[in-house]
Amino acid sequence: MSDMPNKATGQPSAHSRRAFLRTAGLAAGGAALGGGVARGATPDPLITEVQPWAMFLGEGVDATPYGMPIHFEDHVVRRNVEWLTADPVSSINFTPIHALEGTITPQGCAFERHHSGAIELSKEDYRLMITGLVERPLVFTYGDLTRMPRITRTAFCECAANSGMEWGGAQLNAVQFTHGMIHNMEYTGVSLRTLLNEAGVKPEGTWIYVEGADASSNGRSIPMEKALDDCMIAFHANGEALRMEHGYPVRLVVPGWEGNLWVKWLRRIGVHDGPIESREETSKYTDLLPEGRARKWTWEMHAKSVITSPSPQMPISHGPGPMVISGLAWTGRGKIDRVDVSIDGGMNWQTARLAGEPGSKALTRFYLDHIWDGEPMFLQSRAIDETGYVQPSKDQLRAIRGVNSIYHNNGIQTWYVNARGEAENVEVS
Amino acid sequence: MSDMPNKATGQPSAHSRRAFLRTAGLAAGGAALGGGVARGATPDPLITEVQPWAMFLGEGVDATPYGMPIHFEDHVVRRNVEWLTADPVSSINFTPIHALEGTITPQGCAFERHHSGAIELSKEDYRLMITGLVERPLVFTYGDLTRMPRITRTAFCECAANSGMEWGGAQLNAVQFTHGMIHNMEYTGVSLRTLLNEAGVKPEGTWIYVEGADASSNGRSIPMEKALDDCMIAFHANGEALRMEHGYPVRLVVPGWEGNLWVKWLRRIGVHDGPIESREETSKYTDLLPEGRARKWTWEMHAKSVITSPSPQMPISHGPGPMVISGLAWTGRGKIDRVDVSIDGGMNWQTARLAGEPGSKALTRFYLDHIWDGEPMFLQSRAIDETGYVQPSKDQLRAIRGVNSIYHNNGIQTWYVNARGEAENVEVS
Repeated sequence: MSDMPNKATGQPSAHSRRAFLRTAGLAAGGAALGGGVARGATPDPLITEVQPWAMFLGEGVDATPYGMPIHFEDHVVRRNVEWLTADPVSSINFTPIHALEGTITPQGCAFERHHSGAIELSKEDYRLMITGLVERPLVFTYGDLTRMPRITRTAFCECAANSGMEWGGAQLNAVQFTHGMIHNMEYTGVSLRTLLNEAGVKPEGTWIYVEGADASSNGRSIPMEKALDDCMIAFHANGEALRMEHGYPVRLVVPGWEGNLWVKWLRRIGVHDGPIESREETSKYTDLLPEGRARKWTWEMHAKSVITSPSPQMPISHGPGPMVISGLAWTGRGKIDRVDVSIDGGMNWQTARLAGEPGSKALTRFYLDHIWDGEPMFLQSRAIDETGYVQPSKDQLRAIRGVNSIYHNNGIQTWYVNARGEAENVEVS
Repeated sequence: MSDMPNKATGQPSAHSRRAFLRTAGLAAGGAALGGGVARGATPDPLITEVQPWAMFLGEGVDATPYGMPIHFEDHVVRRNVEWLTADPVSSINFTPIHALEGTITPQGCAFERHHSGAIELSKEDYRLMITGLVERPLVFTYGDLTRMPRITRTAFCECAANSGMEWGGAQLNAVQFTHGMIHNMEYTGVSLRTLLNEAGVKPEGTWIYVEGADASSNGRSIPMEKALDDCMIAFHANGEALRMEHGYPVRLVVPGWEGNLWVKWLRRIGVHDGPIESREETSKYTDLLPEGRARKWTWEMHAKSVITSPSPQMPISHGPGPMVISGLAWTGRGKIDRVDVSIDGGMNWQTARLAGEPGSKALTRFYLDHIWDGEPMFLQSRAIDETGYVQPSKDQLRAIRGVNSIYHNNGIQTWYVNARGEAENVEVS
């Protein structure tokens, strides 16, 4: 009872915190954690001697008006997989989710996909056109958009191909590459509904077709119901303007739906009486089933979760005893209700602690405070969303969808952790 | 009724959105906003011609593994005020809040204050000591901290001196400098309570004294009640590791209390039977009252708000008609309940729309969708928090606290906006 998470605050209860280290069966906390002063061990020179950083002035900060991460963190960067795409101008950059914490993804290392390079488009040169089955075709400048009622919300953006390599079995040995085609940012902009209402959608206008200003244009069809629901014409992310590679000055945000719909450098919204069946929704972004037919219009991202630490890029760096199992969960259907964690490949499950009130269609951080006995583990996490949907195993997915798919693999991920604390991408049946 | 904000979603109601531009007494939305296609005006070459960014490939992104803002946004940076501090190694950098949106502050442009420069301290060299009136003096390595139950929360960090120049009347003509000593980040770390409970605070231990590893050490006393409440030993902000100038690898987070207590490069927590009365809480961070006595231990930041756009750095760039008045509100006492906006210097007030559910001790974004008649305005905002506290006028503050203070000026800010849309820092009585 006392070890149950406190749902209201997302914090462990005072009792469970107090007991945390002592339940490890070890002596005082400091000893358990390797501290020195309580044990009379060899004095730690970093404590007993005055260090240079306390003897001399540090660096002034004014020389870097826009700050960057400290050089010790140079490995925490977005990365591509060279063989995955043909050319750097059509590439994918994966979020280093193994090294991040909390829920927000900084723009500088946030997942992004571009089909014909990132374009430099100034606010002055920006135009957004609404055409097709509307009463009043309209063109908006960037300045026009800033005059319309503004909204702010946090949303995850996940590529439909995230974890796509896993259809064929455990392959990429890094959570950055198995699950890093995702970011979670606080977006600000204008409701797409506001713009469509200004243009006046005709009764026969049941779909929109959205295009970017880049050479690929990356056109996608979206049903009017979603267009009028929670889509956003966004110009800021995490407070500041969108970065160039995230669609500066304006991108579309389609909460809960696959990232390919979140068109960057958004230039046109056509209102139509049906979908366009573009390349990006016929040749790509459909799911080939075993019998040869393809699922299409599979926009919604289903409940999914993954343990980010420990993971292959984040081995356990200490011996047995207290540790934190940290991960991310999300669902395109609304809010995460619960996350379970298993250390034995799914035979037994424990309910994880959520780090705060889950947001709708946003990343949720979960934690399991665990006492590691030093034995190998098969770590798994399983998300359950507010609709009652339970994240499936990879085998459950394959039984229905076969192994021809690239997209929409939300199967349970397994990390095998050996006695040295090293983690590896594996599958258990 | 239909123009009331929808508190549940933080979005304007569907009706108010639909009617927004038409109530301006203008023709169709496009015309009202300067759009061209519906009016048969001179064709806009940016719409009718194919632009270079659609004809050629853009830039690959892989060359910048950690991304930076696009050069068009080079002016959106943290800035100091050269005469405010003696030397760049004891300086303040102000958040460009005029140009930000939503609530999150990116680390790269977030307010920070350093007293003896930013120090380079690796995780390997990091130690945190708990000493004094405890059962078990302890030393924690960085790795030790990562093994303890982890928490994540968003909190604002405001310098007690934010708006301090305003005690003497309207002076600095930029919201970045009148109100930019603040940031709002999602912090992850360990509850300070967890560490203190591990050390075992003796009954006579009623205060802690926190010190940084830099030469200034910036020591501050904090009563045990707050230390055991919601303080955090933080190692990540907005997902990633703290930047060097924000205290890498570990800083203290003291939600709702003045920024000077949020000690960076935290090296020691002493448990004591009283406050230390350090330089930072006697010579500094006390408030000299008119009769010559000083208020002390004024840690809590009271409810405050400010309109960030329009403001002196963000003039209205268009003529009369629809516009968005955007601002920030916060309180160290918990959640913002309501924000009112006045366009006539406080004679009449309208309730602003909050951009989402306010977080506790975190920035809240507010919006007022306004139809500007082109006449001059005296813009003000007034925050009310969940305790019922109402943000005072500057004169109300001065009547009680005089004009000798530097710290804790949370008075209502006025921007005079002239008919050209230019804004200026003024006071109205």
